[in-house]
Amino acid sequence: MQPVRGPLASEPQTVLVPRFCASLMEMKLPGQEEFEASSAPRNIPSGELDSNPGPGTSPSPDGPSDTESKELGVRKDPLLFIQLNELLGWPQALEWRETGRWVLFEEKLEVAAGRWSAPHVPTLALPSLQKLRSLLAEGLVLLDCPAQSLLELVEQVTRVESLSPELRGQLQALLLQRPQHYNQTTGTRPCWGSTHPRKASDNEEAPLREQYQNPLRQKLPPGAEAGTVLAGELGFLAQPLGAFVRLRDPVVLGSLTEVSLPSRFFCLLLGPPMLGKGYHEMGRAAAVLLSDPQFQWSVRRASNLHDLLAALDAFLEEVTVLPRGRWDPTARIPPPKCLPSQHKRLPSQQREIRGPSGPRLTSAEDRHRHGLHAPSQELQRTGRLFGGLIQDVRRKAPWYPSDFLDALHLQCFSAVLYIYLATVTNAITFGGLLGDATDGAQGVLESFLGTAVAGAAFCLMAGQPLTILSSTGPVLVFERLLFSFSRDYSLDYLPFRLWVGIWVATFCLVLVATEASVLVRYFTRFTEEGFCALISLIFIYDAVGKMLNLTHTYPIQKPGSSTYGCLCQYPGPGGNDSQWIRTRPKDRDDIDLGLINASLLPPPECTQQGGQPRGPGCHTVPDIAFFSLLLFLTSFFFAMALKCVKTSRFFPSVVRKGLSDFSSVLAILLGCGLDAFLGLATPKLMVPREFKPTLPGRGWLVSPFGTNPWWWSVAAALPALLLSILIFMDQQITAVILNRVEYRLQKGAGFHLDLFCVAVLMLLTSVLGLPWYVSATVISLAHMDSLRRESRACAPGELPNFLGIREQRLTGLVVFILTGASIFLAPVLKFIPMPVLYGIFLYMGVAALSSIQFTKRVKLLLMPAKHQPDLLLLRHVPLTRVHLFTAIQLVCLGLLWIIKSTPAAIIFPLMLLGLVGVRKALERVFSPQELLWLDELMPEEERSIPEKGLEPEHSFSGSDSEDVSSRLGPLRRMCRGLGERSCPGAVPK
Amino acid sequence: MQPVRGPLASEPQTVLVPRFCASLMEMKLPGQEEFEASSAPRNIPSGELDSNPGPGTSPSPDGPSDTESKELGVRKDPLLFIQLNELLGWPQALEWRETGRWVLFEEKLEVAAGRWSAPHVPTLALPSLQKLRSLLAEGLVLLDCPAQSLLELVEQVTRVESLSPELRGQLQALLLQRPQHYNQTTGTRPCWGSTHPRKASDNEEAPLREQYQNPLRQKLPPGAEAGTVLAGELGFLAQPLGAFVRLRDPVVLGSLTEVSLPSRFFCLLLGPPMLGKGYHEMGRAAAVLLSDPQFQWSVRRASNLHDLLAALDAFLEEVTVLPRGRWDPTARIPPPKCLPSQHKRLPSQQREIRGPSGPRLTSAEDRHRHGLHAPSQELQRTGRLFGGLIQDVRRKAPWYPSDFLDALHLQCFSAVLYIYLATVTNAITFGGLLGDATDGAQGVLESFLGTAVAGAAFCLMAGQPLTILSSTGPVLVFERLLFSFSRDYSLDYLPFRLWVGIWVATFCLVLVATEASVLVRYFTRFTEEGFCALISLIFIYDAVGKMLNLTHTYPIQKPGSSTYGCLCQYPGPGGNDSQWIRTRPKDRDDIDLGLINASLLPPPECTQQGGQPRGPGCHTVPDIAFFSLLLFLTSFFFAMALKCVKTSRFFPSVVRKGLSDFSSVLAILLGCGLDAFLGLATPKLMVPREFKPTLPGRGWLVSPFGTNPWWWSVAAALPALLLSILIFMDQQITAVILNRVEYRLQKGAGFHLDLFCVAVLMLLTSVLGLPWYVSATVISLAHMDSLRRESRACAPGELPNFLGIREQRLTGLVVFILTGASIFLAPVLKFIPMPVLYGIFLYMGVAALSSIQFTKRVKLLLMPAKHQPDLLLLRHVPLTRVHLFTAIQLVCLGLLWIIKSTPAAIIFPLMLLGLVGVRKALERVFSPQELLWLDELMPEEERSIPEKGLEPEHSFSGSDSEDVSSRLGPLRRMCRGLGERSCPGAVPK
Repeated sequence: MQPVRGPLASEPQTVLVPRFCASLMEMKLPGQEEFEASSAPRNIPSGELDSNPGPGTSPSPDGPSDTESKELGVRKDPLLFIQLNELLGWPQALEWRETGRWVLFEEKLEVAAGRWSAPHVPTLALPSLQKLRSLLAEGLVLLDCPAQSLLELVEQVTRVESLSPELRGQLQALLLQRPQHYNQTTGTRPCWGSTHPRKASDNEEAPLREQYQNPLRQKLPPGAEAGTVLAGELGFLAQPLGAFVRLRDPVVLGSLTEVSLPSRFFCLLLGPPMLGKGYHEMGRAAAVLLSDPQFQWSVRRASNLHDLLAALDAFLEEVTVLPRGRWDPTARIPPPKCLPSQHKRLPSQQREIRGPSGPRLTSAEDRHRHGLHAPSQELQRTGRLFGGLIQDVRRKAPWYPSDFLDALHLQCFSAVLYIYLATVTNAITFGGLLGDATDGAQGVLESFLGTAVAGAAFCLMAGQPLTILSSTGPVLVFERLLFSFSRDYSLDYLPFRLWVGIWVATFCLVLVATEASVLVRYFTRFTEEGFCALISLIFIYDAVGKMLNLTHTYPIQKPGSSTYGCLCQYPGPGGNDSQWIRTRPKDRDDIDLGLINASLLPPPECTQQGGQPRGPGCHTVPDIAFFSLLLFLTSFFFAMALKCVKTSRFFPSVVRKGLSDFSSVLAILLGCGLDAFLGLATPKLMVPREFKPTLPGRGWLVSPFGTNPWWWSVAAALPALLLSILIFMDQQITAVILNRVEYRLQKGAGFHLDLFCVAVLMLLTSVLGLPWYVSATVISLAHMDSLRRESRACAPGELPNFLGIREQRLTGLVVFILTGASIFLAPVLKFIPMPVLYGIFLYMGVAALSSIQFTKRVKLLLMPAKHQPDLLLLRHVPLTRVHLFTAIQLVCLGLLWIIKSTPAAIIFPLMLLGLVGVRKALERVFSPQELLWLDELMPEEERSIPEKGLEPEHSFSGSDSEDVSSRLGPLRRMCRGLGERSCPGAVPK
Repeated sequence: MQPVRGPLASEPQTVLVPRFCASLMEMKLPGQEEFEASSAPRNIPSGELDSNPGPGTSPSPDGPSDTESKELGVRKDPLLFIQLNELLGWPQALEWRETGRWVLFEEKLEVAAGRWSAPHVPTLALPSLQKLRSLLAEGLVLLDCPAQSLLELVEQVTRVESLSPELRGQLQALLLQRPQHYNQTTGTRPCWGSTHPRKASDNEEAPLREQYQNPLRQKLPPGAEAGTVLAGELGFLAQPLGAFVRLRDPVVLGSLTEVSLPSRFFCLLLGPPMLGKGYHEMGRAAAVLLSDPQFQWSVRRASNLHDLLAALDAFLEEVTVLPRGRWDPTARIPPPKCLPSQHKRLPSQQREIRGPSGPRLTSAEDRHRHGLHAPSQELQRTGRLFGGLIQDVRRKAPWYPSDFLDALHLQCFSAVLYIYLATVTNAITFGGLLGDATDGAQGVLESFLGTAVAGAAFCLMAGQPLTILSSTGPVLVFERLLFSFSRDYSLDYLPFRLWVGIWVATFCLVLVATEASVLVRYFTRFTEEGFCALISLIFIYDAVGKMLNLTHTYPIQKPGSSTYGCLCQYPGPGGNDSQWIRTRPKDRDDIDLGLINASLLPPPECTQQGGQPRGPGCHTVPDIAFFSLLLFLTSFFFAMALKCVKTSRFFPSVVRKGLSDFSSVLAILLGCGLDAFLGLATPKLMVPREFKPTLPGRGWLVSPFGTNPWWWSVAAALPALLLSILIFMDQQITAVILNRVEYRLQKGAGFHLDLFCVAVLMLLTSVLGLPWYVSATVISLAHMDSLRRESRACAPGELPNFLGIREQRLTGLVVFILTGASIFLAPVLKFIPMPVLYGIFLYMGVAALSSIQFTKRVKLLLMPAKHQPDLLLLRHVPLTRVHLFTAIQLVCLGLLWIIKSTPAAIIFPLMLLGLVGVRKALERVFSPQELLWLDELMPEEERSIPEKGLEPEHSFSGSDSEDVSSRLGPLRRMCRGLGERSCPGAVPK
C-alpha cells in the first residue's frame, strides 16, 4: 500500500497503447517468454538493455546464446491453468461438471447458454475465503505428493481417519468418475462428456482426444501445468472434507482437466449439504487463490501447512474490498487494460535472476527501467567533429548482415504488402498535391520516382532502417511557400530549388558535424504539438480551400444567373460576315444575335463541324461542383469511419485490422468507383503519358541556373536555412519517437547517421527535381507495428505480450523497389478525381490534430468540470492552470497562423523553433511539477525536480486510453508512440 | 449470496433506462422522498400502488394526507454526510485538513489539482478494516453521548486513562483547531480556511458562513446529519487512540464539517507514526463503514461495543473481495448505474412501515412489485358490452378537476414549448409526406388543422391525456397504399376515404364494445418489433426512393448527354414561318436549325420578349440533383449527430438536452438555411396561399360519394377492416407502453376510452378530409419525460430520483391550441426544401430501427462470439438459439416486405396480425425459458413457466444499457419504455 517514490518508479503508469501495456506491466505469463524465445532465438538478446549499449560496451550483434535465454525461462514458474469441477446432481445423478476456469482471469460456464463467459476479474466473498482457510487448516495437506496417476492421488487423498472404509470406497469411486467438460469445439450446445460414468476404467487414466483438441491448449505455452479444484455437497459425509495436494512431479491425471496438462495442484472441498452456494464459492476461492501470482509462488515453495496458511493470509492482506452497499457482488468486471506490476510483490529471490555467464539479469521491469536512458545515451555529445556520426556507423555496422537475415520471416511479407500500399497512397496523394502546389513543376511521377529512390537508399544506409521516408506535411507546406515566393520574384523554380537543396544539404552536414542532434531533447511535447497542430491546421485549411476553389472553376448555376444559352453558330450562307464580326467583341453581352445560321450541337461536335459554340452556357460544366463536394465528403467520412472499424465489435479482428489499415486506400477506391459510375467530368489527377518529368521540356537533371541571375544561388541560402530548421525538427522528432525504449529495439539508433542520409538525399532529389523527403512518423510507426513480435500464447482476457520488433532493412527496401516498379501503373492513376485526394488530405489533417493531447485539452475547455473525464492530469494540476497552458498554446498557434497568412509566411520554420523559447519562458509561469504533467521537462529541469512521490494510481473506466495518454513526465514518453504524434506526412493508421 | 427465486423477485434487474433505475433500485437517500413530497404534496399518493387501484377500490383522487407521507419520511433514518479530516504536517505545522467525503460514493480531495475527484465506489484494504476493528475494540465507544458542543465532545473523548493531563490538554487544543476545508465556491485553487489556528475561540462553535454557502448543502435534504472521522499520526502519543461517539442529539459542531449539518457520529483515530498510510486508510475505512446503509442502520441502534463490532463483522461478511494480482487497488471505479436493492439487507423492522391510518405501507420495492399488475388489471374483461369503457369513464371522472389544477407548475411551461415544437415539426413532416403520397389530396394545411383539432379533442376526452396524437408511420403507409389503390380503380379519393373512415370508426366501436383491448397482451415484443421494423424499413426505403426520384426530375448532366444547347428563337424578320414550322415537329432532333433570328436570353426572359426557348438545354435545371442529395444527407447526419450530443461530455446538461431534444427542428432549420444561402431552385414544400383545403375546388366537408359509384361505400369496409387492425395495434401497443408501471402513474389508464376517442376522431377527420390520427409512442413518451417529477436532493455520483409524472390535460391542450394557431405561419413553410424533409424521414426510420432489440440481435450475427457484449440474454440462451430466433424474425420481415411489394400490399396489416400467430407457433420451437429471454411470454405461457431462479446478476461495463435492455420476461417490461419502441410517427427524442 506504500506509494512508490520517484518518477521512474511510476513509469508503468505512463502508457498509451494498451498493447504495449502488457509488456511493460510485467503481466506476462511465466514461461511464455521462453516459449517465444526458443522459436525465434536470434532476435531476443534478453537482458541486454541493462548492459548499457553505449559506445564502448555495444552488445554483440550475435546476441546471447540460446541456452542463456532458455536458462532464464526455465527458472520461472510454469503457467498454471486452474479448473473448478463441481459435484452436482445430489442425491440421484451425481456428476462432476467443470463450471469455471482460470488462467489470468475467471471464465464461468454459462450453463443455460452453453458458452464460456467473457473473462472477468474474479470477485470473491470474504466468508468463503475464511471458510476455505478453516477447511484447509483442519484438512489434509500433502505437499510434494509422489502420486503418479489419478488413482494413486485419490487413494492418498481419501486416506482420512474420519472416513469409514465403505465411505472411502464410495468417495474414491466418485472421485474417479470422469468429469463433464464443456467442449467448445462442438458448437454451442454444451456437449458434456460421456454420460456413462466409469465406462472403461482401464483407459480412465489416458487423456481423451477432446482434451488434446481443446482450443485453449493451443494458447497455453508448453510447460504449463494444471491445478484442479473439486468442490461440492456430498450427502453421505458427516463432516466437511478438505484436502490440498501439491504433486511432486506434475502428471496428467486422465480426463480430470479440460485440457491435457500435467497437474501440479489438486484441491478437494467436499462436505454435507449446507445453505447457499457454500462449496461453489469455496471452490472458486481456492481457484482464485491458485491463480494469484503471489499465492502461487508461495505455495509452490511451501513446505508445510503453516506456509500454506501464511500464503493465504498474505493474499488476504492485499485484497481490495468493495462494500456491499455500493457494489453489486454479482457484477462482472472486465479485465483491466493495465495491471500494477507483480514485480514488487514477489520475494527478492525471484526478482533477481542471474544468467550463467552474462551480466546480472533482472526482471523485465528493471531492464526496462535501465533501458529508459538508452536513447539519451545515443544523444550524448562526444565533442569531436562528426563524432556522433562515426559512433553511429560503428554501432550499426556489426548488425548489417543480420539486417538482412532477420527479415526471413513470413510476417515480413505481410508487412511489405501493407507498407507498400500505404507508401503508394502517400506517393499519389502528395504527388497530386505537389503538382497542385507547384503548378506542375513536379507531379505524381516525380513523387513515385523520388519515393522509390530516396526510400531505398535510406533503407540501405540509415541508422534506423525501419524508418520510411516520405514527403511530409511540413516540407510540403514549405515547398508550396517556396514556389509562390519564386513566382513572386519571377524565378525559374527548379534551378532555384536546386540551390536551396544544395544549401540545405550543406547546413545539415554542419548540423551532423556539430552533433546538433543532441539538442533534440529541447523539443518537448509543447514544441511537438505546436508543430503538429500548425501543420494539421494548414492541411485542413488547404483541403477545404482547394475544394471551395473547385466551385469557382465549376460555378454553381443559380436560377437568376445567365449561364443558360448555348448555340452553335456557322458562318454559313444565311449569316454574313459583318454580323459575325459585329457580335464577337461584345462577348457575353451579345445576347441578341440577330439573324444567324445556327444549330444546337454540343460544343465539341460544333467545333468539329466547323461552327463556333456561342453563349455563356457553352462553357459551364454543370453538377461538377456539388458532385466534387460529395466525393470530397464521402472519401473523408469513409476514411474516418473505416479507421474506427478497428475498435468496433464487428467482424473478426483480421478483417477489422485490414479495413482500418487500408482506410485511405479503400476511401480512394470508393471515390474513384463513384466517379466512374456517374462518369462526370470531375477534375482528375494529372499524370504524364510517358516516363518523363511533369514539367514539359526539362530533362531529369535540373540545370544549375536556368534563367535566374547567378546571385540567386547565394540568396537561396536564406530560405535554405529555414528549410534546414524544418527538416531538422521534422526528422529528429520522428527519430526520437521511433527509437523509444518501449519498442525494445536491440540494434540501437543512429540520429546523426540518419540526418546525414537525409542531407545526401536532399542533394540528390534537388538535382533530379524530385520532392524532398524526411522520415515520416506515422507510416514508420505502422511499419514497426507490422513487424511486432508478440507472444502467441495468451490466456483468456489477457492482451498479447509484446516482445520486440523485427529490425531489418529488407522490408523497407522491397517496399521502395515495388514503389519504383509502380511507376508503370501511372496510367491508371489518371482516373483518380482530385476531390477524393482533397478528402484524404482533410482526413490526414483531422486525424493528426485529434491525436495530440493539446486537442484533448482544448476539448476540456468546453466541458463542465463535472463531466470531465477522470484524467490523471486533472488530478494533479488545477483546472485553471491546465486551461492557462492550453490558452498559451492557442495564442502561440494563433500567432503562427497570422505569420503564415502574411507575405512573410516562409519564415514559419523559424517561428516553430521559437516555440522552444516560449516553452523555456513557461518555466517562469508554471512549476516544474505542473510542467511534468502538462508537458515534459527540458534537460535542465529534469535535474531540478525533486524526487517527489507520484502515486501509482489509475482510473478504471472506459476512458483508460484517454487517461493514460495525458500522463507524461521527464522521460515518460512510454507507450506514447503510436498515434500520439501522427503528424500529416504519412498514412495514419 | 443466495439466488433470489422467482421471476418477480429479480425484477429490479430488468431495467433499460438508467434514470428510472435509481428509483426502482430503492437507492434513494433516506429522507429524500419526504423532502420532495412536502414540496409537491398533492401529487404523490405514496403507497397507493399496492392498495389495488382496481374498479372497486379505486383510490381517492385527493391522495393521502400530507401527514401520512411526512410520517413515512420521518420514520426513515436521516441521510448521513461523512467527512474525513486528516491530521497533517507533523511535527511542525499540525493542521486538520478534509481529504475525503462520502454521501453515497467516495470523493477524494485532489490536493495538487485543488478539486474534488469524481465520485467513485470506495475500495478498502482488508488490513485497514481489521486494524480499525481492533482499535475500536480497545478504544472508547460512547453511544448516545449527551455532548452539546464540540468542546463538550472533545472533553468526553479525551477522558482516557492512558493520557497524562498535559497530553490531554494538548490533544484537546488540537481537536478544537479549526479544520481546513477545500472551499469549492472560490474557484480552483484550494482555499484553505484560516491559517491562524484558534484565532477566536469564542465563536469557534458557530458555523462559518462558508459552511452555509457550500453548494453541497443545497443538495442534501433537510434533516441530513453529519459524521466526522478524524484520523492521523500524532508523534506525542505512545499508543493508538481510538474513539467512536454517537451523539444522543445531533448538534452542529462548529466548523468541524465542511457543511453546517448537525453531527451524529464522531470517530477519532490517532496514534504514533507508523509505516505507510495507516491512519489515512483506517480513517477511510471508518468513513466507508459509516456510509454503508446496513452498518449505519445497525450503528444507529447499537447499544454497546459488542453491537458495534457485530455490525462491522456483518459488513465484512458481505464485502466483495478483489485479488491483488488481478486488480490494481488504486483504480477508481465509477458509480454503477444500478445497485442491488438494499431492501433485503435491512432487518425486517425497518422494512415494513405502517402508515398511521392508511393501508400497510411497504418499501418502494414491494409497492412496485404489487404495482406491476396494475395495467393488467385495467385489461381484465368485465364481460359486459362497453363494460370496459364504462369502467374507464368511472375511473377517470373523479380526477378530471385535478387534471387541470395539477398543471399549475413552471415545468409545464417548458413541456409545452418542447412538445409544441415537436408537434409542429411532426405536422410539417407528415403533412409534406402526405401531400407527396396523395398527390395533393391532403397537405400541410390539413395536417396542421387535423393535428390541432384531433389532438385537443383527445386531450379533453381521453383516458390517458398525456398521450399526444399524431400521424404515425403505419397509418401514413396505409394511406399511401389506399391512395394508389383508389387511383388504380379511378376512384374519387376523398369520398372513398370518408367511407373507409366511417367503417373504421364502426369497427373500432365494436372493438370497444367487445372489450377487445384486453387482447393486447398477445402483442409480445416479437409482434411489436416486427411491426416497428417493417414500418421503419418502409420509411427508410421511401426516403431514399423519394430522394433518388428527384434525380429523375432534375437529371444529372453527363458530358456525353446532349442536354447542352438552348437559344431563344424569334419569328422575327430574318426567320420565315415555313422554316419555323419545318423545324418544330422534329423536336429534339432538330439540331440543325438553319437560318434563324435568335438570342441567348434565358428561357423566362425569352418567353417574355415573345420568343421561344429552343433546345434541350432550356429545360434542365442543373445542380439541383446533387444539391438535393447534399441537403438530404446533411439534415439526416445533423439530426443523428445532435441526438448523440445528449450523451457527450460537452456543454452543460441543459444545452445538451436542448440540442438533442430539438435535433429535428435544428436539422430542418440548417437545411433551410443552406438552401436559402445558395438560393437554388430546389423542390419546396407545397403550401396553399390561403386557408382552404389543399385539393383545389373542394370545401372543408368531403362529399359522401363524389364521382364514385354508391357501392364503393360498402366495398370500403374491406380496406377499413385492414386499417382497423392497424389502428388497433398501433394505438394499443402505444397505450400499453405509456401506462407502464415504471412511470408511476397515479390516475390510471383508459384503454377502452382511448380507443373510443380514436374512433370518434376517425369519423371527424374523415368527414373533414384531414389526416388520421392515433397515439404516437415517442412523442407521448417525450411529453411524459418533460413532465417528470424528480428529487432535487442528490448525492454526488447518484442519479436523480424519479418520483412520478405530472398527470394533467392542460399541457397537451395548450400544445394543440398553439399548433392550431400556427396555421397562420404556413406561408413561412414554403421555404422548406423537400429533400430536408426526406432526410428527417430517413432519420426517423433509422432511429426507430436502431432502438429495437431485434437490431441488436442482428448485429450479433456479425460479431465473433469472442467480441460479443456481455448481454444477460447471451448468458442464458445458447447462441444458436438466439441466432435462430433472429433468423425467424428476419424471414418474417422478408415475407412482409415481399407482400408489401406486390399489388396486395394493402393487406399488410393482416400480415402484421399474422405475426401473433407466428409467435404462438414459436412455442413449439423454443422453450418457455428461452422465450422469456428472447421475447416475453403470452398470457398462457406465463402460467406455465416454473418459478425457476434467475440469478440477480448483471454485467459491469460500459455496455450496461445495452445489457439490461436485452433482459426481459413475462412482466418484465420494466423501464423498457423510453426509446425501446420508438416507431416512426413522432419526433424521436
